Amino acid sequence: MYIRDVQGKQTDPKICPVIKKESESTALVDGRNGFGAVVGKFCMEVAIEKAKQTGIAMVVAHGSNHYGIAGMYTLQAIEKGCLGMSFSNTSPFMVPTRAKEAALGTNPLSLGCPGASGDSFMLDMATTAVAVGKLEIQRRKEEPLPHGWAMNDQGEVETDACVALDARKLMPLGGTEENSGYKGYGLGMLVEIFSGILSGAAYGPNVRKWGDYGKLANLGHGFIAIDHTFFAPGFEERMSDLMDTMRKMEPIDPSKPVLAHGDKELLHMHKVELEGGVTYVQNQHDTNAKLAEELNVKPMVSKNVCVEGQTS
Amino acid sequence: MYIRDVQGKQTDPKICPVIKKESESTALVDGRNGFGAVVGKFCMEVAIEKAKQTGIAMVVAHGSNHYGIAGMYTLQAIEKGCLGMSFSNTSPFMVPTRAKEAALGTNPLSLGCPGASGDSFMLDMATTAVAVGKLEIQRRKEEPLPHGWAMNDQGEVETDACVALDARKLMPLGGTEENSGYKGYGLGMLVEIFSGILSGAAYGPNVRKWGDYGKLANLGHGFIAIDHTFFAPGFEERMSDLMDTMRKMEPIDPSKPVLAHGDKELLHMHKVELEGGVTYVQNQHDTNAKLAEELNVKPMVSKNVCVEGQTS
Repeated sequence: MYIRDVQGKQTDPKICPVIKKESESTALVDGRNGFGAVVGKFCMEVAIEKAKQTGIAMVVAHGSNHYGIAGMYTLQAIEKGCLGMSFSNTSPFMVPTRAKEAALGTNPLSLGCPGASGDSFMLDMATTAVAVGKLEIQRRKEEPLPHGWAMNDQGEVETDACVALDARKLMPLGGTEENSGYKGYGLGMLVEIFSGILSGAAYGPNVRKWGDYGKLANLGHGFIAIDHTFFAPGFEERMSDLMDTMRKMEPIDPSKPVLAHGDKELLHMHKVELEGGVTYVQNQHDTNAKLAEELNVKPMVSKNVCVEGQTS
Repeated sequence: MYIRDVQGKQTDPKICPVIKKESESTALVDGRNGFGAVVGKFCMEVAIEKAKQTGIAMVVAHGSNHYGIAGMYTLQAIEKGCLGMSFSNTSPFMVPTRAKEAALGTNPLSLGCPGASGDSFMLDMATTAVAVGKLEIQRRKEEPLPHGWAMNDQGEVETDACVALDARKLMPLGGTEENSGYKGYGLGMLVEIFSGILSGAAYGPNVRKWGDYGKLANLGHGFIAIDHTFFAPGFEERMSDLMDTMRKMEPIDPSKPVLAHGDKELLHMHKVELEGGVTYVQNQHDTNAKLAEELNVKPMVSKNVCVEGQTS
């Protein structure tokens, strides 16, 4: 997707984002159609620097592209001892409560907070009930979708994964109106406001459709950094105590411990370290090789081959 | 509840909150066990004043009590042309995903934003699937609870309203783990961090239980004010355009239009204005009269009597 955008000149791979307007605690950034990850990293750096001076700072950007993982930027804040928030609008996928068509993106939000002794809290979530990838997994497993994930073109809750994947209409977190789906719709609006509306980027249903490479994305992002030393002393200890309290709770199923947000990903990172690298499925290797050939670059070399049907 | 706390000396009705620590864009407030609404109003005033200077400000308070409606404080920000956010922890009611006991409150969050020509966006939501009051309504209607609202003491989803009301175990927004309830649990943590953890107040399962008048509440609140003029010009127009886009979408059921957040409450306020006041049910009048007698104060006088079984 990123390469298609560069080839079509919708993304300029060489630009640096610029600050258009700033104060002690804020900045408005023009991403100049650069890579979203470059724009995002720049914005969070500016936010952290300002938050270290005044306690809290907010930086928003327009003219950006898909910024990848919302939690990447809040991790930047954690590494500097700050709390970080990150928001981005995305291509329309979410159907607002009572409506029939998609009008907001999966609009992710993330909050990252440093705990004691390297511990950390990391919430990174789409404001839809699930991301599109989860529908794809159900389709491959040939299992029905749980009620409240997706809708069909008739405006009904859809449980057939194939029909739902064609319709591309995700429900907001919560699902139906009865189950408070309007709260998930409200959180999608919150993300839209902090990314598209504050920054003057494209917003709502005007954001280009997924896979539409003929149009500039002009996505918006929002970033907040907070230096907890400006508030009550002992933040990191209380943060870890709260997480440990949750982790130590009696679980319903003894094989499924209660988690704090980010624990699952940390466990996975340990696994990757133990294995000496990221494990890819063969299909991913094939795609990479094909792309390398098309772009006339050296293909990616893997360390090991075929461990139980996978290549690492 | 407020009166019981004053009578038991858990709330001091006469205090003024004080700023313990501040910067250009932050303040830490000690609520000194005053009324939550007094503490909240004070904090948001400070946040707005600072945001007008630096673009964004955050104020957190410890030593506070139940602050009522989260949206009251974001409305304060709207009235001054700012965006406002408000967060508060509350007595434990939410069961974290995979756990059996309640460990977080219904922990509300609110975002209020000014639109064009007096229009506004007002999200005010508990981070549980529903508030306790909704279980009570289902019990009175003798209808089962939708799946995903509440749990029983065995850690199962409960649909019997009576059993659920006894257990007092609400599920996070989303419901079960399959339906991404861990996102609602994560949002409950976010609110806890911005209220209890940053401020040094009581937090998580250590907050006093609902109706426990023998202990100080020491609740925490968090407030953020943002002056949109520090970002891209034309915020209010884009905000209204986004809301109007939603309002004009084709609804599934023509009798249920797509709403922007706050529309339902605005319609209700118009109704109250048309009727010349708030309509109370007889039961509320009786409770007020009994309380007035107990406190030896003049009872509340109503304007009209008995309109279709109600008194206004």
